[in-house]
Amino acid sequence: MRLKYHNTPALDKLANYISGYSDGEGCFCVSFTYRPKNIKIGWEIKPSFAIGQNANRSEVLFLIKKYFNCGSIRKDKDTLKYEVRSINDLLNYIIPHFEKFPIISAKQKDFILFKDICWRIKKQEHLSEIGIKRIIKLAYKMNGSGKRKFSVQSMIQRVKSR
Amino acid sequence: MRLKYHNTPALDKLANYISGYSDGEGCFCVSFTYRPKNIKIGWEIKPSFAIGQNANRSEVLFLIKKYFNCGSIRKDKDTLKYEVRSINDLLNYIIPHFEKFPIISAKQKDFILFKDICWRIKKQEHLSEIGIKRIIKLAYKMNGSGKRKFSVQSMIQRVKSR
Repeated sequence: MRLKYHNTPALDKLANYISGYSDGEGCFCVSFTYRPKNIKIGWEIKPSFAIGQNANRSEVLFLIKKYFNCGSIRKDKDTLKYEVRSINDLLNYIIPHFEKFPIISAKQKDFILFKDICWRIKKQEHLSEIGIKRIIKLAYKMNGSGKRKFSVQSMIQRVKSR
Repeated sequence: MRLKYHNTPALDKLANYISGYSDGEGCFCVSFTYRPKNIKIGWEIKPSFAIGQNANRSEVLFLIKKYFNCGSIRKDKDTLKYEVRSINDLLNYIIPHFEKFPIISAKQKDFILFKDICWRIKKQEHLSEIGIKRIIKLAYKMNGSGKRKFSVQSMIQRVKSR
């Protein structure tokens, strides 16, 4: 597919542009699903980086996907969402980008926590009782944790001993 | 006031960052108020550039204000809003920035229309019947015009002959 953009800046300019765009519209997310029957430790954990945009001006999402060379774009209600869920893609493409071209706003705090959590997952710390508890506590320091279904205490109580 | 930022990139990097941020969160707006008693032509016209952000991560707005060296930040419900309303500031600071560091998404179309309208206002075209009608038609080509109170026809009908 040949993409048409209104303006396509050089790569280093684009890198800063994408960080600025992500500062506004991007999200470093760590979601948990309670699956006591299927997951030995009780909790499934899914880190992701996502950017949403109205479908009528979603060109920038396709450009971002091309830039990062990973992730996918899907419909999410009336918007389009660019999303990277693979832990290896997060560690190899997304995190190094935001280390080199950092977020200026307080969202940077979320990025630091997100990076920490992704490395812990890569090291399979989320499969141990002590590891998942540590990750839950870190995730609850992130912005947007107010919207979570479980309190940090009730999440930790639900961690299954192995 | 000494500002604290999580990361402050060099000026050229910041310029691209701000364009990216504005692509997501910024708005080139042209608002009209019907004031038949006070405005000879019937319509008051106010162009503005605005960026909104949650108050808890508004650092970037203060950095943007400092970068553009114009405009103001005010509370707007639960968010903070950076806004530039002065026609001279728009023409001297905002428009030249987005000419040099363009928007990638379709919001660029709004910028082109916005720039055209600002120059027409600077040349006082909005004070003539033919001029304001032309500006109204241009403004209605901008995204977000679906939210306007009046249809383009009913706006044009309300323009007062002088």
